[in-house]
Amino acid sequence: MRLAVVGGTAAGPAAAVEAVRHGADVVLFEAGPHVSVGACEIPYHVAGQLGGASLIVRTPAQLGADGVDVRTRHRVTALDPGRGRLTVDALDFGSTHEERFDRLILATGARARRLGIPGEDAAGVFPLRTLADADALRAWLDAEDVRHVVVAGGGYVGVEMAEALRARGLRATILDGHGRVLAGALDPSLAAPMDAAVRAAGVTVRAERPVEILADGAGRVRAVRTDRRELIGCQAVVVAVGVEPVTELAAAAGIRLGATGGIATDDAMRTSHRAVWACGDVAEVPRAVDGRRILWPLAPVGRRTARVAARNAASRATAAPETVAPIAASAAVRVFGVEAATVGLSLAEAIAAGLDAVAETIWAGSRTHHFPGRRAVGVRLVAERGSGRLLGGQLVGAEGAALRANVLVPMIRAGATARALAEDTDLVYNPPLAPAVDPLRVAAREVQKLAEQGTTGARGRRRR
Amino acid sequence: MRLAVVGGTAAGPAAAVEAVRHGADVVLFEAGPHVSVGACEIPYHVAGQLGGASLIVRTPAQLGADGVDVRTRHRVTALDPGRGRLTVDALDFGSTHEERFDRLILATGARARRLGIPGEDAAGVFPLRTLADADALRAWLDAEDVRHVVVAGGGYVGVEMAEALRARGLRATILDGHGRVLAGALDPSLAAPMDAAVRAAGVTVRAERPVEILADGAGRVRAVRTDRRELIGCQAVVVAVGVEPVTELAAAAGIRLGATGGIATDDAMRTSHRAVWACGDVAEVPRAVDGRRILWPLAPVGRRTARVAARNAASRATAAPETVAPIAASAAVRVFGVEAATVGLSLAEAIAAGLDAVAETIWAGSRTHHFPGRRAVGVRLVAERGSGRLLGGQLVGAEGAALRANVLVPMIRAGATARALAEDTDLVYNPPLAPAVDPLRVAAREVQKLAEQGTTGARGRRRR
Repeated sequence: MRLAVVGGTAAGPAAAVEAVRHGADVVLFEAGPHVSVGACEIPYHVAGQLGGASLIVRTPAQLGADGVDVRTRHRVTALDPGRGRLTVDALDFGSTHEERFDRLILATGARARRLGIPGEDAAGVFPLRTLADADALRAWLDAEDVRHVVVAGGGYVGVEMAEALRARGLRATILDGHGRVLAGALDPSLAAPMDAAVRAAGVTVRAERPVEILADGAGRVRAVRTDRRELIGCQAVVVAVGVEPVTELAAAAGIRLGATGGIATDDAMRTSHRAVWACGDVAEVPRAVDGRRILWPLAPVGRRTARVAARNAASRATAAPETVAPIAASAAVRVFGVEAATVGLSLAEAIAAGLDAVAETIWAGSRTHHFPGRRAVGVRLVAERGSGRLLGGQLVGAEGAALRANVLVPMIRAGATARALAEDTDLVYNPPLAPAVDPLRVAAREVQKLAEQGTTGARGRRRR
Repeated sequence: MRLAVVGGTAAGPAAAVEAVRHGADVVLFEAGPHVSVGACEIPYHVAGQLGGASLIVRTPAQLGADGVDVRTRHRVTALDPGRGRLTVDALDFGSTHEERFDRLILATGARARRLGIPGEDAAGVFPLRTLADADALRAWLDAEDVRHVVVAGGGYVGVEMAEALRARGLRATILDGHGRVLAGALDPSLAAPMDAAVRAAGVTVRAERPVEILADGAGRVRAVRTDRRELIGCQAVVVAVGVEPVTELAAAAGIRLGATGGIATDDAMRTSHRAVWACGDVAEVPRAVDGRRILWPLAPVGRRTARVAARNAASRATAAPETVAPIAASAAVRVFGVEAATVGLSLAEAIAAGLDAVAETIWAGSRTHHFPGRRAVGVRLVAERGSGRLLGGQLVGAEGAALRANVLVPMIRAGATARALAEDTDLVYNPPLAPAVDPLRVAAREVQKLAEQGTTGARGRRRR
């Protein structure tokens, strides 16, 4: 059986190797020069914090040694799954030809969203998704007289990039319409520690959006104009306004896209065409809590979908395919010494999902009361009214916030209640590590009280 | 309804306050001068690391303001639950009298085990359980010319005390028959980081047991003789060989003790006498995995049993009492910069419980591959052969080991499998916080493989 994999960043190579292990004859096509890239570490690569280490996890030769027929600089331009054919441009040869496949895995990933404003093509404006993007930014920062960089977007990548730029001694200004960082991940009630850390690090955050990028005569970026008609002088712009799935190839081949815009899949990661599977950032996955299919373009999920897609695509058996279980949907970041993490649904997402939900935010210490080094941990939990079922959580703090969030992953996946977390879950305790009642359990007790108030409170009531 | 509480360290006051909230008329008897003591912080108090903070969480006056009739320096010497009477010595008055109760909560706690060797009563030999013990040790260290302290026992309290003594600039030698610290908590395959940290901190660990304590003419400890006939000169001895439940009062009143030696309770924390409940370190609690009743003398469990005992004892309703759910049984410590944690059963405990179990140890990085600050995390998981059900876990490492262990608490309680942890549990990921496949999931994958090997391997097979 000949299995073709399209896309070589992370999920593609993982799927290819797994399929080889399961006996398939695998060819992998990647338009760029690299495969198997650790894209999550781009900010640290830009900061120069990884030493001489490359972001390349495995070279094409290493992947070849694993039994994969690797074709870098080969851009797939069309698919015909019915005939089992794809069209590919061999970029280094200027030639186009057809390749045959029995089965296909789409791992075309996601691309950085563009700002869609005039001047975005100026030299010195960088999206950050590929190793080439990262190397281009590094080269620009090394070669040009850069003092100030504007980062468009204050999400995970935006704050990580601001940290990287500060580590290089550069001024950094984040433009985010919310006027704060991580607005998509952290409720306003949890914003303070990260805001303070960002400010203390000398990063400016402005509640503005870029509307135009201005360049000098040589086409090099020199300023960003904002929706408040401000002109911010800068010598580079980082575009960090999110990602979008790369679906043109799939869509043109008649493969169904989901409501998210990603490739629709079943739990076995099969697409609407029976010979085609999808995995990684381009593929929808099921979410715990409500079963909704979402995009969750992060490495742990991409690895899992890659394995499932590969095992099923490589298998001749049609019965009992391996499936992807619903994910809790977790994310975390540590920047400027503060950790933030989110698992599951925010209150707004829960309400949007049709759930009658309540949420509560608490602050507690990371260690016992008098213990030196104790830091504040903020915990916000979302629970279903009545049942008290845990729907989501957000944590922030300078110590132990992100790893604490992990407790919520199995509990949310299992449909556990806030009461179970508050009363029955004997989390570890030791004065330098956690108080006898962990901040998570304090929050659970509070949200449980709210959830059990059957009679009062507005739908989706917020309390501080 | 008059509710008497016997014991004032931690669970007793918690139960008393909770019972007042539920309408009971509560009197609390405590033989010592203090109530509501944070005993877990004794080592840090000895080290002088808590600033001026006391270990007293609430004074008798504060507890009185909460509505509890507090009787410190009142030792209960006999119970007659059938008549609803207890006998109490008022220590400051030299008088004995009877008190009436309708219901009773026993929170008599645990005491430090003694060595049971000649010379143990010498001046300068300290158990460490009460605030008085801690203050006596501090006073000894302040007043005497102490240079070297022998710590008998290398468990949690032993290593914490060794750290405290080193923080005071004293030489410390741990005597532990296992020849290593935390032998009861960490499998030999996980011993290295803690052993190295203890050594690097200048603490000597000897595989010896004390057999005699030698004193000078004034009765002050001067040496410890060991079972290898070594004589170790020292000016103080800390006895940290575990605790045992204080059950004399209960036993003499005909209240049933369990197989552990603690007070037998049902899930509502009621003892064998219908008017008597028990909570805290003296009371047995149900363990997840096998439902066995165990002693787990740690604050989070003590608080929970106190609340349940108090609510049930204060309630006139007999139907549907509140119950304590089975605990995962977690413990953790951070000493000398290394964290260790255990949740659930060790392989030996699983086998002793009649389970067909396997275990596997792995080492992985706390952060992604090239990330600066990455530290090794050791994870050992125990799973049931065949089903792959998670039975227990142990973690060790300089970064993120203890809080990672928390993920196991809800999973072990829920009977989740190693496969679910390895494949379906999307733990948080961020290069400075965790690799894309968390060390916990690496371990889960390995133990799952072992557990699913139906045909080979000895019962309880160990692998490194």
